[in-house]
Amino acid sequence: MKLEHLDTPAALIDIARMQRNIARMQAHMNALGVAFRPHVKTTKCIDVVRAQIAAGARGITVSTLKEAEAFYAAGVSDILYAVSIAPSKLPRALALRRQGCNLKLVVDNPTAAAAIAAFGDQHGATFEVWIEVDTDGHRSGITPEHENLLDVGRILHENGMTVGGVMTHAGSSYELDTPEALAALAEQERAGCVRAAERLREAGIACPEVSVGSTPTALAATQLQGVTEVRAGVYVLFDLVMHNIGVCSLDDIALSVLATVIGHQVDKGWAILDAGWMAMSRDRGTSKQAHDFGYGVPCLLDGTPLAGYVVSGANQEHGILSSTEEGAHAGEADAADAANAANAASITQRFPIGMKLRILPNHACATGAQFPEYQAVAPDGQSVPWMRLQGW
Amino acid sequence: MKLEHLDTPAALIDIARMQRNIARMQAHMNALGVAFRPHVKTTKCIDVVRAQIAAGARGITVSTLKEAEAFYAAGVSDILYAVSIAPSKLPRALALRRQGCNLKLVVDNPTAAAAIAAFGDQHGATFEVWIEVDTDGHRSGITPEHENLLDVGRILHENGMTVGGVMTHAGSSYELDTPEALAALAEQERAGCVRAAERLREAGIACPEVSVGSTPTALAATQLQGVTEVRAGVYVLFDLVMHNIGVCSLDDIALSVLATVIGHQVDKGWAILDAGWMAMSRDRGTSKQAHDFGYGVPCLLDGTPLAGYVVSGANQEHGILSSTEEGAHAGEADAADAANAANAASITQRFPIGMKLRILPNHACATGAQFPEYQAVAPDGQSVPWMRLQGW
Repeated sequence: MKLEHLDTPAALIDIARMQRNIARMQAHMNALGVAFRPHVKTTKCIDVVRAQIAAGARGITVSTLKEAEAFYAAGVSDILYAVSIAPSKLPRALALRRQGCNLKLVVDNPTAAAAIAAFGDQHGATFEVWIEVDTDGHRSGITPEHENLLDVGRILHENGMTVGGVMTHAGSSYELDTPEALAALAEQERAGCVRAAERLREAGIACPEVSVGSTPTALAATQLQGVTEVRAGVYVLFDLVMHNIGVCSLDDIALSVLATVIGHQVDKGWAILDAGWMAMSRDRGTSKQAHDFGYGVPCLLDGTPLAGYVVSGANQEHGILSSTEEGAHAGEADAADAANAANAASITQRFPIGMKLRILPNHACATGAQFPEYQAVAPDGQSVPWMRLQGW
Repeated sequence: MKLEHLDTPAALIDIARMQRNIARMQAHMNALGVAFRPHVKTTKCIDVVRAQIAAGARGITVSTLKEAEAFYAAGVSDILYAVSIAPSKLPRALALRRQGCNLKLVVDNPTAAAAIAAFGDQHGATFEVWIEVDTDGHRSGITPEHENLLDVGRILHENGMTVGGVMTHAGSSYELDTPEALAALAEQERAGCVRAAERLREAGIACPEVSVGSTPTALAATQLQGVTEVRAGVYVLFDLVMHNIGVCSLDDIALSVLATVIGHQVDKGWAILDAGWMAMSRDRGTSKQAHDFGYGVPCLLDGTPLAGYVVSGANQEHGILSSTEEGAHAGEADAADAANAANAASITQRFPIGMKLRILPNHACATGAQFPEYQAVAPDGQSVPWMRLQGW
């Protein structure tokens, strides 16, 4: 279907941009001499995953067992479930392994490691488990020098489970915005994860895989000595947060929300869109960055960004598009009536009722999750639906 | 299924609390002598809608045509689509009308009004249209004294459409937190909407319905002279934002997210949950209120809130539970190591791996939208799945 005829709101994937993003990351990984295991939590879409694998990805990373079940059913066998497992989820994990899925679990504490070992023993099953390493203090994992690292390794190893590797995610890279800082964090992520693997090996525990990654550190890394694979998710679509971090341009962002102008508040210089937070998500990741893009950057249907405008506010099914000129933001209109007069008068002409726009989102993972399907748009403007998963 | 055995994360509706919330609102509307038309955008769930209608609701309000289509198919005929219609959506609206659905459209500008009239004329159809009135400046609608009000009324009336009424939504009530301010806004909402109806009637345009509402103003209203019906959505489940506004207690909140403890960062006093922003949503509505509850308030399985703890941070599938004691928030741990020592040492005992918790959310509409289904929990702790709609 042609873009102009799609119901709004709709989540559009620009196929050409997506393919360019996939090729860029895979080429960088190839140059660094490591395998690449994309994190499919960003799109949860088999059509996207197939494109990543076709470009050279080796296996996938998932954030939920539902993703593992769906993508295994669709033919992907090498799957890393990258969240420290809750013991109550082990029966689902075992069912997948018994179907033939090469599912790897992750753990970062002795209690869960012991639960895996006990469950495996009880069911005559050998789980492959990767140990999560904390290299930047932002969330989960065991710091490389912590005693728990070897404790977890021994609990698994001595009870017949397979320690498949160590993995880390330097998620604090989302707070950076210079190439130097990103390169430094990429090296910190690499060094910490390699060190954890070395400690395990020194203790007599085989640790074949060393897995690192976040989109910013993956793209910033210049050498990955000792690393066997990299994981990244949002690179495939990119978004405004990644733009602010400095790892993509606006022209690389492959996800946008198609919206229609449904009203105006002329005195305030607002155009009202039929894409509110239910479509854009409540993610306001750029609010803490150097450039706050509100709920998104409006573009013409051909993808051209409309400089000087943002989606400045959102209710459930209403977005407020306004100028970024001083005082012209939502809620500040009273203070700047004079400055707004010319702008306000033109808002109905610039954005007439029925006009369709494409809104670039703060965070592709969060915005995609609001939709049961994407519309994948080819260079000729024709689109086809690509389903995505919801739930756990 | 018993609560303890549900996979996590899961969205739980406490049926007893929901029924109490429904009864409270309906009784208040009955006492005020107005009809009640719940906004089903909060739950998008037919089981909830049936309970609202059984309690006395007259028709429903929807935020998308998908809701209208699904709930008409499920037997609800009197439906107000409360977003100013994009002309491109008129064919779907017409299809619903032709199936027998008593669908009412909303419009707030002459351009869309003319598009409805032209489309109706072209297809020999009479649409019932309600005019959106702006009574608090927060979003869409025509202010009661604006010339567009009569223009829109005339365009519809003189071209054979039915002006069914006026409607307004005082969404700025979400920014208030005293009974006096809420009562004043409720009166402003009432008076503005009644005034708009009077102007239309004085111009010879019948305007039978006068529809107002938001959960806070609906509950705060003490008289609704001239109003025929009230709309409200989130009252059915309530949430932490409504708690801060002062219209419900924590014990009234009927939606919670069931989560499992999957890890700790002992030095920081963190427990890690398997409910991140994908489960809680990115809505941080309480961040702008007097009491910031982070990503939610943890409760025991029986619903008892755990005073002194919040979900202070969230990644896609990880939530960070921490103490609200001074300096114990995520990211501030370094500055308060001493103060945290006792707390940190106890985090693993207080929240052991595998423990299940119920997290009260900031915003029920946003959190519910992250799930393809609710688990409706009866007083005996048994749950059944209730499906909800996603998409447009």
